[in-house]
Formats: sequence, structure tokens, C-alpha cells
Amino acid sequence: MSAPLPSPLPSRLSFHKYQGLGNDFILVDNRQQPQPCLTPEQAIALCDRRFGIGADGVIFLLPGQAGADFSMRLFNSDGSEPEMCGNGIRCLAQFLHRLGIPGREGAYQIHTLAGRIVPQLRADGQVTVDMGIPRLLAGQIPTTLAEAEQKVIQKPLSVAGREWQVTGVSMGNPHCVTFLGAGESLEDLDLPVVGPQFEHHPAFPERTNTEFVQVLSPTCLRMRVWERGAGATLACGTGACAVLVAAVLEGRAEPEATVELPGGNLEIRWDPSTQHVFMTGPALHVFSGTVAE
Amino acid sequence: MSAPLPSPLPSRLSFHKYQGLGNDFILVDNRQQPQPCLTPEQAIALCDRRFGIGADGVIFLLPGQAGADFSMRLFNSDGSEPEMCGNGIRCLAQFLHRLGIPGREGAYQIHTLAGRIVPQLRADGQVTVDMGIPRLLAGQIPTTLAEAEQKVIQKPLSVAGREWQVTGVSMGNPHCVTFLGAGESLEDLDLPVVGPQFEHHPAFPERTNTEFVQVLSPTCLRMRVWERGAGATLACGTGACAVLVAAVLEGRAEPEATVELPGGNLEIRWDPSTQHVFMTGPALHVFSGTVAE
Repeated sequence: MSAPLPSPLPSRLSFHKYQGLGNDFILVDNRQQPQPCLTPEQAIALCDRRFGIGADGVIFLLPGQAGADFSMRLFNSDGSEPEMCGNGIRCLAQFLHRLGIPGREGAYQIHTLAGRIVPQLRADGQVTVDMGIPRLLAGQIPTTLAEAEQKVIQKPLSVAGREWQVTGVSMGNPHCVTFLGAGESLEDLDLPVVGPQFEHHPAFPERTNTEFVQVLSPTCLRMRVWERGAGATLACGTGACAVLVAAVLEGRAEPEATVELPGGNLEIRWDPSTQHVFMTGPALHVFSGTVAE
Repeated sequence: MSAPLPSPLPSRLSFHKYQGLGNDFILVDNRQQPQPCLTPEQAIALCDRRFGIGADGVIFLLPGQAGADFSMRLFNSDGSEPEMCGNGIRCLAQFLHRLGIPGREGAYQIHTLAGRIVPQLRADGQVTVDMGIPRLLAGQIPTTLAEAEQKVIQKPLSVAGREWQVTGVSMGNPHCVTFLGAGESLEDLDLPVVGPQFEHHPAFPERTNTEFVQVLSPTCLRMRVWERGAGATLACGTGACAVLVAAVLEGRAEPEATVELPGGNLEIRWDPSTQHVFMTGPALHVFSGTVAE
């Protein structure tokens, strides 16, 4: 249980709460100034689930720069600032739609610390995000499971007293994907025990995210994830992308499939012509609110 | 981590979020009808901290009955309905104040399932609640640590491989209070290991809440609590009252003292003339919001 926080909440703030697959954010319309209107310390206080509003992070909708329509910045609940967040930018696209901003054919040009990202609002209310080109070489992931210039596909790895077959994928962050054998079930997996041993295995010098996958059909994969630094989470967008890529590389799935996560489903497509991975999923407005003394 | 919930949120709801020592509630102005405007299932969905608003419970401000000015009902985050909640009724008093309802000399007559409760708003913004008369006989608590008609003061109890001295108090629910010895510290206490062994000890046929206490001075007590059914929590109002009563019975404290809990401080007074215990503590508005499709 968290203890009370020394940092005070801001004296006045209008905000909107969104979630995508249970990954939840406080959205702030910050278009009137180029810098976030809150400090990281205030974001920490607002994200506290008992003394504040409660969220995984605060997302700021900022004026555009570098030719983009808008900019996005994000403070996590620990005050850190990631380059980008797939679940978060889906929420930002829905927020722009709620503000009455139509976008260009439903697409918004968003400047982020990871470069230009273009979330696309679909007619069914879901949002598609181009997650870029996966990097597959051992030196890019990085992992020592193969030579630096080789791919890492179905390599044996000893973890938690047994041997696993793993495939390595970088979606900008490292992923180790392993498919369960016949007769094994995701429910029986002791994730809090096994996950940390993958994360800290010496084969991954920058640690790793790990996905455990059950193939329901070539177009339907079910996964559980152990996130580097975050543990068992309801959803990991880059993890779902890595799972689809690994499943295609291992000949287990089509290049377009549904990935079932504990928090809900994502549609992942690995475009054969451009090699880009596209993630489609929900982003929902939960409530709007005002902090006021 | 919680999974997505099947129950939908209500399509429209205005609410106010309050917390007292980190125990947090969604307050709903329900004065227009005598029954709560939400079902327990909707309360469960609203209390979800990722897919809903997030709270320990939903409190309904209802029209008065049985001669009281107002009525209060509360659905916990699991859909259950407790008789009363000390932290919750402090929040309700602050909510009435925010609605511009003055009360009679700051006091509100509130009908609850535990009978008439009269929270009193003080000039400093804190709220005092009459928590009633503690019951001290073993049969009332209930515990087998003494004959049914005897008090339970500094009785030996073997738990987790050592002997503790415990005092039993009922504040409508059972409490087992133990004071740390010289050289022991609350920080070193392994609460998740020790707490459940007290809770399920055969000496407490209806299980028990357990408070571990460090006496800083006769007017200042520091405690950690293991709540029956809820585990380690930031604050337990009845627990703080039981601690003060036990400390007075053991000659360790004055009848009026500050009790420090992980979520903040409560002032507890055991009135010598009426035997009633009065709890004074904070209740803070955090934000107001609207759920809307």
C-alpha cells in the first residue's frame, strides 16, 4: 500500500481519464503552452491511486512541432518520461476526436520523443498505430543467444530449471518470446517466479520483456507478459507486436492475427511490403474531472 | 492485476472523490430518491482502479429517515454493504459541507445501517465521529483468551513462534492489540507473515483485526494494522480506537492521544463520563467528475 505523498496536487486542473486494455492515463489539454503544465512531482501525486486521481501516467496534448499537428509528452506514475507509449497514444487519438478535431482522414500527426507517430482512428472507434519495423538481429535486441548479426529464432534457453525455445525481437525494446508446448497452459504458468528469471538472465545484457504464448489458431494468439521493470501487466503493446512477429518467424501464425492479452485484445498486422508492424486496439474515455480546492 | 470487468459503467453519473487517510470513496448525491441510484455490480465496476474511477467504495447521500437529516449507504469495491465506515462518514460530512448544507452547529444527523451517527465538522476542517462504547468482555469480542464475562488485558498468546501480550477490544468488530517491547520496531515487523496468523488464530472464533503498537509517549501512539479480510491497510478507524482503549487499560496512555497510522494521524478520545470513544481525522475532496458516454 502506498503511503501519503508529500507533493501536493495542483490547485486547479481539468482532465480526462482514458484507458486502453486497462493501461490508464490522465489526459490534459495543454495546447495553450509548449511545456507540460505540471511537474513530474505533480504527476506522481496525481497518479497516486488513493491520494490522487490514480493512473499509470499523465499525457499532455501539446502544440505541434517539427511539422506535426500536435505533440505528446507523458510522465509515468514514477515521474519518469518514456519516449512513447502505444496504449497512451491510442488514448490521445480518442481524446483529439472527443475535442472535435477531425484529423486528416482520421489520422493525427503526433510529434513524440520517439519521432513522428500517426495514430489512425477507425470507424469502429479503435485506433491503429504504426509501431515501426522490428529489429531481429541478436546485436540489436540485444542478446547473446546468437552472433550479433544473426537472428534469434527458436534458440534453447535454460531458465527456472527447464529448457525453453525462445525467439528474440526488438520493437525498440527487447522481447523474448516463447511458445508453450502441447499440454501446457498459460494459467498454470507461475509468472512471478519465472518472469524475473527471464528478465535478469545473463543472455539479455539490457534485461528483457518476456512473452509466453499459446497458439489458439494461426490468426489467434493468447499471451501473458512479464514486463521489464513493471512485472505482470494487463497489456503490453510492443509485446503483442513481438509475439506476432515471432509467431510468423516460427511459421505458427499468419502476418495478421488477434493477440489476446489479460486486459483485452489487440489486432496486430506485420505488413509484408513495408515490414512495418501495425497495432489496432481500443482506447476508451472513462470520465472527465476537475481538481479544485 | 485486475482483469477487465463484464459489468458496464453507468452511462451517466456525476460524482465527487474523497479520501480520509488514503481510504478513498466515490460520493454520489442521491437525495432525489430513497434507494441508491447504482447497483452493487455498477459500484464494483466504478471502484475498479483501471477500468473505472477507482475507490474502496461508493457512498450514497440519501434522504433522511428515522428522524435523521440524511441517510448514508455504502457499497464496498467487492459489492458488499457494511453497516458503517468511520473514514467514509467523515468524507460524507465534508461532502455535505461542500454542498453548502451547514448542519446544526457543524453536526449532521446521519442514519446508517448501524443506527444514528453524528459526524461533527470542526473549524480546522477535520471531522469528529462518535464511535460508541467499546465492549471489553471476552464473550463480546469474541475471544477464548479469558472467561466470557472477563476482560482480556495483557494475556499471553503464542503466534508465529513467539509469545505476545495481547489486549482484546470490540468496537463493533473484534480487535487484538499488542504493544511492542523495548528495542522492537514497527518497521521490522513482518506484517504479511504475522498478521494472518493472528487473524486466523483459534483464540478468535470470528477471526480478528490486529494492531501492533509502539508507544511514543502517553499521548502519541504509532500503529500498524492487519485488517480482517483486507490485510495491511493505510488506516483503520475502529483499530485506532481499539489501540487507544487498550493503551489506557494497560496504563500506557492518556484517555486522549494521537494515533499515527501509515495513512496519517487520528485523534482518539475515550470520554471518561460517557465511555464513548470519539475519533477525529481528516477527510479531503480530491476531485469532482462526470462519467458520460
